[in-house]
Amino acid sequence: ETKEAEGSPNPAGLDRPSRGNSGIICQAIGRSIFASSISLASERVSVLLQKEEEKETSCPLLFIQLNELFCAHDSLEWKQTARWIKFEEKVEDGGERWSKPHITVLSLHSLFELRMCIKKGTVLLDLEAHSFKQIVEKAMAVQTGERSLRPEVRKKLMSVLLRSPRHHTTQSHLRVVAEFSTACCRGECFVSLQQSNQFKKKIPAGAEVSNILVGEVDFLDKPFIAFIRLQKAVGLGALTEVAFPSRFVFILLGPRAKSKAYHEIGRAVATVLSDEVSSHRVAHQAEDREDLIAGIDEFLDELTVLPPGKWDPTIRIPPPKCLPSPHKRYQRARTQHAPATQHVSEELQRTGRLFGGLIKDVQRKAPWYWSDFYDALNIQCFSAILYIYLATVTNAITFGGMLGDATDNMQGVLESFLGTAIAGAVFCLFAGQPLTILSSTGPVLVFERLLFSFSKDYSLDYLEFRLWIGLWVAFFGLILVATEASYLVQYFTRFTEEGFCALISFIFIYDAIKKMLILADSFPVNWNYKINDLSLLCLCDLSLSPQQNWLESANWSLLTKTECLQVGGHLVGNSCNYVPDITFMAFILFLGTFLCSMMLKRFKTSHYFPTPLRKLASDFSIILAILIFCGIDSLLGLETPKLVVPSEFKPTNPQRGWVVFPFGANPWWICLASAVPAILVIILIFMDQQITAVILNRKEYRLQKGAGFHLDLFCVSLLMVFTSVTGLPWYVSATVISLAHMDSLKKESMTSAPGEQPKFLGIREQRLTGLVVFILTGVSVFLAPVLKYIPMPVLYGVFLYMGVAALSSLQFLDRIQLLLMPAKHQPDFIYLRHVPLRRVHLFTLIQMLCLAALWVLKSTVAAIIFPVMLLALVGIRKAMECIFSRQDLSWLDDIMPEKDRKEEEENKRGKSCVLQMWLCGSGRHSSCCGGQGPSLLTCWRSILMLGRPYLVGSHRSCVHC
Amino acid sequence: ETKEAEGSPNPAGLDRPSRGNSGIICQAIGRSIFASSISLASERVSVLLQKEEEKETSCPLLFIQLNELFCAHDSLEWKQTARWIKFEEKVEDGGERWSKPHITVLSLHSLFELRMCIKKGTVLLDLEAHSFKQIVEKAMAVQTGERSLRPEVRKKLMSVLLRSPRHHTTQSHLRVVAEFSTACCRGECFVSLQQSNQFKKKIPAGAEVSNILVGEVDFLDKPFIAFIRLQKAVGLGALTEVAFPSRFVFILLGPRAKSKAYHEIGRAVATVLSDEVSSHRVAHQAEDREDLIAGIDEFLDELTVLPPGKWDPTIRIPPPKCLPSPHKRYQRARTQHAPATQHVSEELQRTGRLFGGLIKDVQRKAPWYWSDFYDALNIQCFSAILYIYLATVTNAITFGGMLGDATDNMQGVLESFLGTAIAGAVFCLFAGQPLTILSSTGPVLVFERLLFSFSKDYSLDYLEFRLWIGLWVAFFGLILVATEASYLVQYFTRFTEEGFCALISFIFIYDAIKKMLILADSFPVNWNYKINDLSLLCLCDLSLSPQQNWLESANWSLLTKTECLQVGGHLVGNSCNYVPDITFMAFILFLGTFLCSMMLKRFKTSHYFPTPLRKLASDFSIILAILIFCGIDSLLGLETPKLVVPSEFKPTNPQRGWVVFPFGANPWWICLASAVPAILVIILIFMDQQITAVILNRKEYRLQKGAGFHLDLFCVSLLMVFTSVTGLPWYVSATVISLAHMDSLKKESMTSAPGEQPKFLGIREQRLTGLVVFILTGVSVFLAPVLKYIPMPVLYGVFLYMGVAALSSLQFLDRIQLLLMPAKHQPDFIYLRHVPLRRVHLFTLIQMLCLAALWVLKSTVAAIIFPVMLLALVGIRKAMECIFSRQDLSWLDDIMPEKDRKEEEENKRGKSCVLQMWLCGSGRHSSCCGGQGPSLLTCWRSILMLGRPYLVGSHRSCVHC
Repeated sequence: ETKEAEGSPNPAGLDRPSRGNSGIICQAIGRSIFASSISLASERVSVLLQKEEEKETSCPLLFIQLNELFCAHDSLEWKQTARWIKFEEKVEDGGERWSKPHITVLSLHSLFELRMCIKKGTVLLDLEAHSFKQIVEKAMAVQTGERSLRPEVRKKLMSVLLRSPRHHTTQSHLRVVAEFSTACCRGECFVSLQQSNQFKKKIPAGAEVSNILVGEVDFLDKPFIAFIRLQKAVGLGALTEVAFPSRFVFILLGPRAKSKAYHEIGRAVATVLSDEVSSHRVAHQAEDREDLIAGIDEFLDELTVLPPGKWDPTIRIPPPKCLPSPHKRYQRARTQHAPATQHVSEELQRTGRLFGGLIKDVQRKAPWYWSDFYDALNIQCFSAILYIYLATVTNAITFGGMLGDATDNMQGVLESFLGTAIAGAVFCLFAGQPLTILSSTGPVLVFERLLFSFSKDYSLDYLEFRLWIGLWVAFFGLILVATEASYLVQYFTRFTEEGFCALISFIFIYDAIKKMLILADSFPVNWNYKINDLSLLCLCDLSLSPQQNWLESANWSLLTKTECLQVGGHLVGNSCNYVPDITFMAFILFLGTFLCSMMLKRFKTSHYFPTPLRKLASDFSIILAILIFCGIDSLLGLETPKLVVPSEFKPTNPQRGWVVFPFGANPWWICLASAVPAILVIILIFMDQQITAVILNRKEYRLQKGAGFHLDLFCVSLLMVFTSVTGLPWYVSATVISLAHMDSLKKESMTSAPGEQPKFLGIREQRLTGLVVFILTGVSVFLAPVLKYIPMPVLYGVFLYMGVAALSSLQFLDRIQLLLMPAKHQPDFIYLRHVPLRRVHLFTLIQMLCLAALWVLKSTVAAIIFPVMLLALVGIRKAMECIFSRQDLSWLDDIMPEKDRKEEEENKRGKSCVLQMWLCGSGRHSSCCGGQGPSLLTCWRSILMLGRPYLVGSHRSCVHC
Repeated sequence: ETKEAEGSPNPAGLDRPSRGNSGIICQAIGRSIFASSISLASERVSVLLQKEEEKETSCPLLFIQLNELFCAHDSLEWKQTARWIKFEEKVEDGGERWSKPHITVLSLHSLFELRMCIKKGTVLLDLEAHSFKQIVEKAMAVQTGERSLRPEVRKKLMSVLLRSPRHHTTQSHLRVVAEFSTACCRGECFVSLQQSNQFKKKIPAGAEVSNILVGEVDFLDKPFIAFIRLQKAVGLGALTEVAFPSRFVFILLGPRAKSKAYHEIGRAVATVLSDEVSSHRVAHQAEDREDLIAGIDEFLDELTVLPPGKWDPTIRIPPPKCLPSPHKRYQRARTQHAPATQHVSEELQRTGRLFGGLIKDVQRKAPWYWSDFYDALNIQCFSAILYIYLATVTNAITFGGMLGDATDNMQGVLESFLGTAIAGAVFCLFAGQPLTILSSTGPVLVFERLLFSFSKDYSLDYLEFRLWIGLWVAFFGLILVATEASYLVQYFTRFTEEGFCALISFIFIYDAIKKMLILADSFPVNWNYKINDLSLLCLCDLSLSPQQNWLESANWSLLTKTECLQVGGHLVGNSCNYVPDITFMAFILFLGTFLCSMMLKRFKTSHYFPTPLRKLASDFSIILAILIFCGIDSLLGLETPKLVVPSEFKPTNPQRGWVVFPFGANPWWICLASAVPAILVIILIFMDQQITAVILNRKEYRLQKGAGFHLDLFCVSLLMVFTSVTGLPWYVSATVISLAHMDSLKKESMTSAPGEQPKFLGIREQRLTGLVVFILTGVSVFLAPVLKYIPMPVLYGVFLYMGVAALSSLQFLDRIQLLLMPAKHQPDFIYLRHVPLRRVHLFTLIQMLCLAALWVLKSTVAAIIFPVMLLALVGIRKAMECIFSRQDLSWLDDIMPEKDRKEEEENKRGKSCVLQMWLCGSGRHSSCCGGQGPSLLTCWRSILMLGRPYLVGSHRSCVHC
């Protein structure tokens, strides 16, 4: 039953061309400019692959190990010297250490040698054997004719091959010995030794082993070569490092003085076998020697070569972030193209029916509803809750304070807390995208301020007027939901989104710094203080006090400043206006929190300490930074300003209750007239809400549970009714905090094969973190005793961090940096390969001008027309199509939807490709997707169309594309 | 006279084997495991190379440009699409931008195609032609027989080839047009256009151009291929981007639909031609087509290949830091080895004669003496002077202050200034290594303190006693010079040096922080201050003052603290002991200066702004940081402690004069007894001086003018006499400041070929910077009004920077970092490939223990035996040879000298290799030197033996090795 593959019949009756010695040349001519026939090798390979597909067997992962023969203590010994899963790991010279996984760099020479080995050596395909001894025996049995071995050589060969091998394991020796001895007591030495190997965990179940044995012996005068594929994978016991069954065995033993060459050939076999397409699957399917050679030839044809003298072959190349898709190569090998599956963002398709979008949103989200709760069971969510809770509380206090100022405390800090808690929690429970965090926003604040002064000037009841506006806004909102107006967000291209996101981020940064400066004003430093002066003085002068008499004898030093003023005294002295040290301390806390957060976040990519520890530190970076600096602040004991939350539950302004009555205070026509300002507010809310929603639902976040643009707007509209009736602030989605929320919920795969990049798996999509954050916000009234230890500068530091983190991930910022770089130093961004630099700069400058205009608007009272200006941004982007070519814009921005159906179809096809490779689209890794021809261009365009990830961390994650 | 190379006779009568179609296979078999003959191709190539050597012609650099045919505005046009000097630069798709230089990544396929092209196409070698037209005509003339072209095709071909090309220049269009028009007025359009190209400056004079023209046309049905080498390089006018004469022309025009393949073949030709050894020299020397093919085959055999699926061929690989030496490949191609030239560090060879070493030092240094002054004419030296001056002054003040405390001002700050200035200047004028900066050191300070208290206890005259010790020390020093004792420094291996350097760096860091804490103690912060308290009070209580009466009516607020105490009052109030803000401000200045220096130093490697600007910022980093923070300090106006230098020239202690008399105060036998402490001092000075000297004279600094160990010690000994007689402090070389001095004087080449790394060229070796520094130190008395604006915290920040900079470049620190890293994240240090990790850790731990022991010693009174402990370090290192294998130590440390001559010879041979490649030895770039076999091991060992650069910057510079 064991026959050598040499003479196997052609089983499938396929027309398989035979080839002479000049196979490689033939094959080179295949795709040559000199002839136009298809490569013979590739033809053969595609036949094999087609056959494989027909069989519908999936190829198991191959674990490949290279054992070499060494002379130790005057006897020969097999030692494992390298292994492959996807990449090569080598046992270092010291013999106690695995190298880092790296790409196998070969010399072309060794591949030619391998080809010769397969040509000249023994090839046994589908051998039936149950032990290594049997395999070797059968391999020797077929050595007949020219290749036959003398009996004594055969015996020696057998004895060498069956010597027990030594594996290099990653464990400490002590532990191995300990486990080994316990296991041997149970009589299962080898198996246990293998199982104790931690490394096995990295190999998926069902993997198979390839054993490569190479070495030199002195009793051979020509090489003994055998390539064996087993009919059924069998465990070969001690031979393999990991206890998986073996499928392939390659043996190369030859005369002395060529051990370097044998080693290189061994590596070449391993590399060919570790290749997914043309070789390892071919090796699985090959019917005879010629098929194997065809596989090697196909492999050769796809090689990337580096010229000698320009590259040092001893440099170990780390695995690239992103690899060309095996599917692509697979397809190429089959010389046919499968039609790309179509995919369109269905969330934004118009149904044409009233509330059609809303209904579809509900239908889409409903099945996920319970998983939205149990998906949150992860320690990472705990960190996210703390982080977002602190951000939300700080925001509530800040906006609450400002609203209080603007509305004479009709809406104060307590209303802000209550509103945030209720609106946020409701939204998280019912919205389409529960990762969104609601908050008051700048434009709303400006509107409230105007509304309040208008009401005052015209003696209108502010809250009642506001109630009607709110009701109208909700009504308009419902109309927008009913008419599926959210489909308009398709017009928000990268240009608009990045402009908006940059603006919001700048506002965060600006506000954080501004608050610190205000704080410095409240605790002024005496810059003119001279150490030697005795002028450090502040006394309470009671000479004008009505209580002067009875206080005369009191010890003045017991009075505080407040008491002094209470009893009618006034402060005298040159240092009364100054506060020492607090400002400096505040800045130290502010910058310290910011830098510490940054550092801890980046700690994940550092090389110190084990990965789980680093991941933990990175996930909890902000919380850790806050705790560290709260600790420092407490230790030093300086009286820095602390977080103060309201501790009593009652309206800030005693003149108002918890419910606003719609009639009574204002004339009846106000309820109609309110529709006019309501139009402004609905534009504002629609724009703010939808741009944020678009940003949060970008493809690069890999959201599994889909978006719900219509449902989100529906929720916001209903909440408008509630907040208007109860006189609480109005809420829309807050871009920066929501992004921070998502960022803190990122999932990454644990690395599988050594050297593989961890993959970004998506976001923990659930409703619980948001819900808990808002419940906590609600009960903050009771948390006051704990919260009072948190200094405000620390929280401002967190705000600064959030702004910088959101900003630093924008392509816009990359392009601004390009302005400062000489062309030769610029990174290899994909758009720079295709768009002239001046065009890129022009695009950036226009974007900067728009941003500057928005900034000016936002800083003045005109902020109220800010949402309209966002619409203007869309217009500007449209107008830019006159300045820039469509081609340039496709690289720098998304393409806007057009009437032209054909164009749209093409776009859609482009987007389908994106499904596979949106993660590669960071633009930082030059062209991570292989393949050639027009389909590549379409692919790349669509990568750019859906853009690169916004957040810093995510562009490290890449998938096969 | 124009004949096609096809049928050229075999001119040299060499046995050149002919080869059939299966040339590649043959060649692959050449070095195969199946046969042992030398590769035919490599034989052919080595014959050619030998011939070249006989001719003694040097091959000019080749500038290679690829022009492709494009269809623009319905007419064909040639456009330059790529160019090569060493690496590939591509015109990006946008057409207005050169890509970054990168390694040409080819497919193996394209190289096979090229081979076929050379085989099938026209090959014209040593063609005589004076214009491109002539070349094309002659190339067509030989198209006979099978390849003959129809006349109309020939005409069309001619017209296409002679179309004027379009180059991509790096200039702006406007400027090109402007220059072009002015030039055209002078009737020299083309030449001017070429000359205006800034890029030409990057190509060395004497370079030659290779033109590669590829494209597709519709009138051809099979490719037209021609490879032409001109007899004499001629300028081809507008064809070439740069106005250099052309040597090679490769033309490939073929039928439509293969343009991608033509492009790839064009790139393949360019890559082969840009290879220094087997192809471009072979192409220069080839006699016929077969020689060219042999060149390609040899090139193929040396290729590095990357497996498909594991690497994305579209990734542009940046040029590596360090390339394998072309000499190595050259030698391999010639299959013989030139004997390595011998080189031994001759500074440390013993002559065996009295003062023999000193005389040789003087002989070595004398010829450089004048260049030691005019070599200093560079802006960089100005920065170095400012930087080192400030460091020296700060050091002088610090040590002066401490010496003053220790010796009751017998040696004070002024003496410190004066001594530093004179000793330093004299040393810089006459020493063997004028880059050394002299300073007081810790052990000397401890000795002085002990000596002074001993003198006091036994009523001896301190200065007179010290004079005699100094004279004895000088005498012993001269004996050491006479006996050439400095050769002992060979026993200071990396282990000792790094231990010492780490210790000194830690002391710098520790001292900087300690001084800041002392400063914080002098300006205490009132941590318990409450903002609301009225307790901010400090009054002058004059109730106990004798002048109470006449002062009673005076306004107390006009008194300063000092005045208050002067008039006998005492300070009352709870804030008298506190100083607000100063401490915080001091820490901000301290950390600010440190971080700013670090940032500016690293700015050189950033990508923003043009290179000269970045270089300037980096060269002046410390000065800039000092200026910035002095500016901030002045602006804010807080009374931070400032630098105060003595402003009057007189001995600090009025009891002493400027000259110490040897006799009179002490008993006569003291002058003999002084010899005993002098032995201690000479050990101290010898060790301190020589370790620093060894560190400063390491090979990696590429010093051209040689070291002078004996001369240095001689100068130090003579200065001992002077400083003892005048009662000034004693001086030896200061490691950290001297390293900072060298670091600020580094020379780097401007990049030559695009993509090549700038080379570290050495240090500006001269005497002027040091001299000026010490002269300035001397006249600092007059600079007091300027220096008083410099806050001390800023200077402490500079000290911190110096310590960290010196520390961060030690291999020791890399190894400490390894302790914290999981094995899989560790960088690919070369020693990790060869020494088991546990051994590395053990080595590090021993070094850390030694350092800890030294630190403890240094911190106690035992500091006086510190130099003996350094000797102990050498002993410990010797003892480690029992624990570690010689092999391990050779990777982790230098090898100590042995009696064994043979061993020494081997080492010397190793060192000779180092001459070529010491710069690669940073250990960070894994194995930057190519080649194989035992000579590589020797090379690598010797890299490690001479170690990697100490300073951060230098490991970026690499040479061919």
